[in-house]
Formats: sequence, C-alpha cells, structure tokens
Amino acid sequence: MPAISFDLQASDGAARAGMLQTPHGAVPTPCFMAVATLGGLKGVTVQQAEQLGQGVMLCNTYHLALRPGPERVRALGGLHAFTGWRGPMLTDSGGYQVFSLAANRKITDDGVWFRSHLDGTAFNLTPEESIRIQRLLGADIIMAFDECPPADAKRSAIEACNRRTAAWLARSVNAWRADGLPGGAQEQALYPIVQGGLHQDLREASLADALRHDLPGTALGGLAVGESFSDRLRVLDWMCPHLPAQKPRYLMGVGTPLDLVEAVSRGIDQFDCVLPTRMGRHGTAYTDAGPLRVKRLEYAEDPRPVDPETPSQASRVSRAYIQHLMKSGEILGGQLLSVHNLAYYRRLMARMRVAIRAGRFNEFADKFRATYVDKEPEAEVSEARKPGRQAENDHGG
Amino acid sequence: MPAISFDLQASDGAARAGMLQTPHGAVPTPCFMAVATLGGLKGVTVQQAEQLGQGVMLCNTYHLALRPGPERVRALGGLHAFTGWRGPMLTDSGGYQVFSLAANRKITDDGVWFRSHLDGTAFNLTPEESIRIQRLLGADIIMAFDECPPADAKRSAIEACNRRTAAWLARSVNAWRADGLPGGAQEQALYPIVQGGLHQDLREASLADALRHDLPGTALGGLAVGESFSDRLRVLDWMCPHLPAQKPRYLMGVGTPLDLVEAVSRGIDQFDCVLPTRMGRHGTAYTDAGPLRVKRLEYAEDPRPVDPETPSQASRVSRAYIQHLMKSGEILGGQLLSVHNLAYYRRLMARMRVAIRAGRFNEFADKFRATYVDKEPEAEVSEARKPGRQAENDHGG
Repeated sequence: MPAISFDLQASDGAARAGMLQTPHGAVPTPCFMAVATLGGLKGVTVQQAEQLGQGVMLCNTYHLALRPGPERVRALGGLHAFTGWRGPMLTDSGGYQVFSLAANRKITDDGVWFRSHLDGTAFNLTPEESIRIQRLLGADIIMAFDECPPADAKRSAIEACNRRTAAWLARSVNAWRADGLPGGAQEQALYPIVQGGLHQDLREASLADALRHDLPGTALGGLAVGESFSDRLRVLDWMCPHLPAQKPRYLMGVGTPLDLVEAVSRGIDQFDCVLPTRMGRHGTAYTDAGPLRVKRLEYAEDPRPVDPETPSQASRVSRAYIQHLMKSGEILGGQLLSVHNLAYYRRLMARMRVAIRAGRFNEFADKFRATYVDKEPEAEVSEARKPGRQAENDHGG
Repeated sequence: MPAISFDLQASDGAARAGMLQTPHGAVPTPCFMAVATLGGLKGVTVQQAEQLGQGVMLCNTYHLALRPGPERVRALGGLHAFTGWRGPMLTDSGGYQVFSLAANRKITDDGVWFRSHLDGTAFNLTPEESIRIQRLLGADIIMAFDECPPADAKRSAIEACNRRTAAWLARSVNAWRADGLPGGAQEQALYPIVQGGLHQDLREASLADALRHDLPGTALGGLAVGESFSDRLRVLDWMCPHLPAQKPRYLMGVGTPLDLVEAVSRGIDQFDCVLPTRMGRHGTAYTDAGPLRVKRLEYAEDPRPVDPETPSQASRVSRAYIQHLMKSGEILGGQLLSVHNLAYYRRLMARMRVAIRAGRFNEFADKFRATYVDKEPEAEVSEARKPGRQAENDHGG
C-alpha cells in the first residue's frame, strides 16, 4: 500500500478538485500548507490551526536538523507527537535552505557540506542524509533532495543543477525504499522536485527525470525565488499539461492569494508559503481586495474587522484595535493577523474547490482578479522572501 | 441599583468564597484578574482566555490614556467592544504607573503633571481626569486615583501620601457620581485604595478614610512594590480583619501562586498580576511544585507536558518541545507558557474555592505550602516587577 492516495474528484478547465488521503487524515485539494519552520506555526497554536480548518502543516528539514536534531524529535515520538499537530504533515528536503541560508557551502556530486548559520557547526547533507532525517522526523509527505539554482543562474549552471537533481533523486528514492529506518515508502510519500529555471526545455528535461520513478506526487521547485509573476505563470503554462493527472501537484514556496488563484487555474493542487504568518506578524491582512496594511495610521479609527468575509479569532475586533496593538509592539496584533491570514488562505482554497466542483472556476477567478489589488507587491513580497530576511524571521522571534 | 453585587457564599477560617455579579457576568471568587495592559493579553487571544475560563480582564488606564486615548476607545464602543472581551473588566486609576513609569513628574495637591514615557507628551492626571478616562473606557470596576508611596519612603512621606489619597478619593467619588459622562456610579463600581506602607497605624488610618465613602469594594494598594514576602503578609494580617466582610476585597498587583494562597487564607477575594503572562513569555511555567524554568537545557529531552495536572493548549506538547521553541526564539513558546500559566492561576483559584466551600481550605493550603518550592523567587520575581522592566515589556513587544 502506498502511503498516500489522491482522488481527482472534479476538473474545470485545467483547475482540479481532489482528495488527498494520508496516514494522518484526508485533505481536500486545492490545499494550502502552513509553514511551521522549526515545528511551530509562528504565533498560532495547533488548536487554533485546527479550529480554522488548516489541512497540512509543513516543517523545514534544514532547521530541524540543526535544532533540535532528528534523533531528538524521533526520541520524542516524531514530528506529530513533538509538535502536537494531528493532521497531515510534509517536510521539505533541506535543499532550498542549504542554498539560501547556510554559510561556507561546498557542493559536490556527493552532496553539500556547509556550516550552520546558527553556530558554525559543520554539516554534510546528502540525498541519503536528507531522507534519513525525514524518515526520523516522520512526516506523511517527504521531498527528494534537489539542487535549486539561484534566480540569476546561467543556463549551463541550471543544466548542472538538473543533472545533480536527477542523480540525487535516484539516491533519494533508494534511501526512501531502503529497510532499517523508521518511516520510508510504506508510511511516507516521496515527491520529486522539478527544476530547470526559466528554460522550457530544461524544465521538461527535469520533469522527465522526475517521472522516471513513478512517485506518488510531483513538485515544481525553483520558483518564488525572485522571478517575475509573469515568468512564474509561464513556467506553469509549460509544465502543468505534462504533470501526471492522477497524482497531486505541488508548487513549492508559492505564494500570494493571486499566485494561488493563477496556479490553481493552471492545475496545481498543493501550495506552501510563509507569507500568511510572516505578513501577519508584520501588520498585513490578506483580503479579496488585496493586502490590507493594518498597521498603518489610516486604520487607527476604522471600526470594521480586518475582513468581514473571513471568520476567525480576529473577527471580533476592529482594524483600529489591531492597529493600536501593532503600533504598541504588542505580539497579540501579529498573532491575530496571522490567524486571520491562515483563515483567509484556507477559505480561499475552499472557495476555489467549490467553484471547480460547480464548473464555475473561471467566473470565480475573473472576479478575484478584478477585485484583488496589490499596490506594492514586488517590494513587500520579495522583501519577505529574501533569504537573509527569512533567517532573521525564522530565528529572531 | 449599584453596578456590582457581592454574595459571600462560604467562609473557612478567614478564607472566603463568593460570587461577584457585574454588568458583564458573574465571577466566582477568589478570582485572579489577567492583565491586558494596553487592551490585549500578551500572547493570548480573548477566545483562548474564554476557553480557559478567565474571569476578569484588567487594563491599565495610564497606558490606554497615552495610546490610543480614551476618546478613541469610547468612539470604538468602549473597552469591551475595543478588545473583544465579553466578560467583566477592571481598570486601574493610572496612579501606580504615573509613579513608576512616567518622566518629569510633578505632584501637587491637585494631581500629577508628567511627561509620557513614550514620546514626552505632557499630561496632567487628577482624580477627576482619572475617573473621566475610566468612565470613557467603561470597565465594570474602576479604581480611585491614589498616591502610592515608594517602598523605601519615610513615615512622613507615607503620611503625606495618605492625606493626598484621602483627598483624591473624595474627589474620585464625586467624579464617579457626577452626571454628564458615560458610565459612572450606575454602571461602574468604584473601589477605594488603601495605602499606608508597612505602618500598621497608617494602614488603619487610610482604611478609615476609604470606608467613609461606603463604596462597593475595597482595595489594598502599595504592596508588591519591593517589600518582603513576610512584610506583605504582615500587612494582610493587620488589615483583613477590618475590611468590610460583605464587600469584595482586592489585593492589587499580587502575585505568585504562593502569594495568592497566603492572601486567600487571610481573606482576600480579588487579585491581579502580570506574572503569568510575563513569566510565561520569558520561559517559566507555574506548577504546584513551583515555577518550572522550561527554557532551561535540562528540559530539552523531557517528554512530559509542562504540568500534567493543568489542561490547556500547552498540554498536548512536551517540555522538550517548548524548550526547543524558547531556545529558537519562537514566539509560540511564550504563547503556550502564557496560556498554561493563566490556566494554572485559574485552576488554583477554583481549587481554593472548592476547598473553602468544603471547609478544607487549611488542608489545601498546607499541602500547597509543602509542595510549592521557589528556588529563586526574589531575584526573578522582583526582576519581573521592576518598573523599567515593566516599561520594556509593556512596550517592546
């Protein structure tokens, strides 16, 4: 028995509605996975996440490998027992963080040698080690170890990343199937990651490498790393028609609400992004009208809730109250906006699913595109995505 | 009709169990009031506070007067609508904070002129102004404007504070009874504050001043300002026998779990203190065995919940997990310990109430004194109580 199964329930154009079964419960798709980098959602308890209907929680292998270490998590019962999250979980492979956060990196065909950005401790991450860590952590879905090229990489560098990603995938698959460790192919689903930058032929070649292993899902990596919105959609336009239809499709690290609507319209099923909690912590609420910078003085007398359409623990108070909390440096302000943003993302996915099943997805997407206005998306979102910023936020509290 | 009523339901020795009726619901006593300085509990949503059965929320008039200002709170519907808290609320008078936080203070018989510790804005706080602000804020219980002498004040200075406190009380009562503003005597209960330092005769004189007005409750102030545990109990031993038996008795700013047990055993009904959220935010969980410094390395592999006896949103995870979050600077760690500590305080009060009603309070208190060990209470608690520290925590996030 494979660890997960995916039931494609409805399509509307390229958009898909499905049900993803995992050892820790079923998740309707399209679904957004909330990011709990170090094992905890920033500002949101697991009980609050359950109350708002959060489907999947994602943890970062790189961060947990450094602290508290996979053996410690395993000794405490694995990630589910450790974090108290009872629903489905996914861990990434550590590849992306090694390339964006670690210091003194040395890449060879064997893997990556680096020093921890926390204390300089030396680590060696290989496909086998990434899978070993992910088996000890025990998430329902784990990711193959890949090499993510920088956004400005030359074609030849991306070709080299593709070669390594293919070789590391084969080794990841072997490590996932091997006996002798907890987890593995019977209990955890392994997804390959498709790279290839912004080159159609390299993307297609990487996908061919990925499909060779007939794994339970497919992930698109190397996006949301600094490329433009239209470049990102272009990659989806190339790739989605070739992704296996009967398996879940995961677009890694994406994105804003508008990103999600555009990606769902092209056939993506799973997403993860730090934006809901990170932007919430910094004073922004997502709404159908676009991001609302609640911390701004213009909301200091606004009696309306941040978003009258989205019920959450933030619904009971006004924009003026949250503005006051943010201005006063009270953590409760960021907590309320983080809870709201996760509730908003959850509701957005649910509304898309309903529209797909009713054959009205285009209508929904067109209306969304017409109302959603992001006045300064590039500056604010890419600021939030900067690796240095991520390190600061992931570790500075 | 007075705004509140108090029904003394049972006594056991000097310990009392009662029911405090307010315009926003009934609260069983003895009760602990959680401190939401700027209108929000630090790290805890109102829904979480409701779930754990929190009875009363306290806000600080000084802080809210500076930011966002009482007119703004009133325009947004008053403190209940502003904060989303639906249960009983209490505001202090601003007196204590003016004396501990404000800069460039000038005290006259009229009131206190000072500059905001935030931005240097000049304010003039008088009894009339304190009551005007508290009427605009709209809490169920409000406090008379008093002068709290420093812990090291000479007898003559305390005598002067007593005189001012008495004069300011009379003016507070007039302002509370006056027409022409929201709130007031029909909707809000006014408590007088008894000062007098550590001098029995000055305490008794201040109490006589307070009782002259036959107000709905009685508060003891000027404690938990740096005096020793035994000095604090000595003042309670002097005063409690003379406090009106049919009215609620409020010990301001106290304290640790052991403080609460000792004060309840002497006949106190209401308490407030920043310790549960402040100590939680800094990594300490309260338990019957004493404070547990969960952030310490010794708990890094401890699979037990912080306190198996106290159900809360922190119960699902281990000490090791919270240690990991605290060490990693994740705000979720402090949130979980704050929720736990409020749940612990709530449960402690409920257990005392049950013991009083069953006539077994002494048994409960003796057992508590025997198990509760605080290895470094003076250092840690007085650190948490330092005015500078309070300013930092109240405003630095």
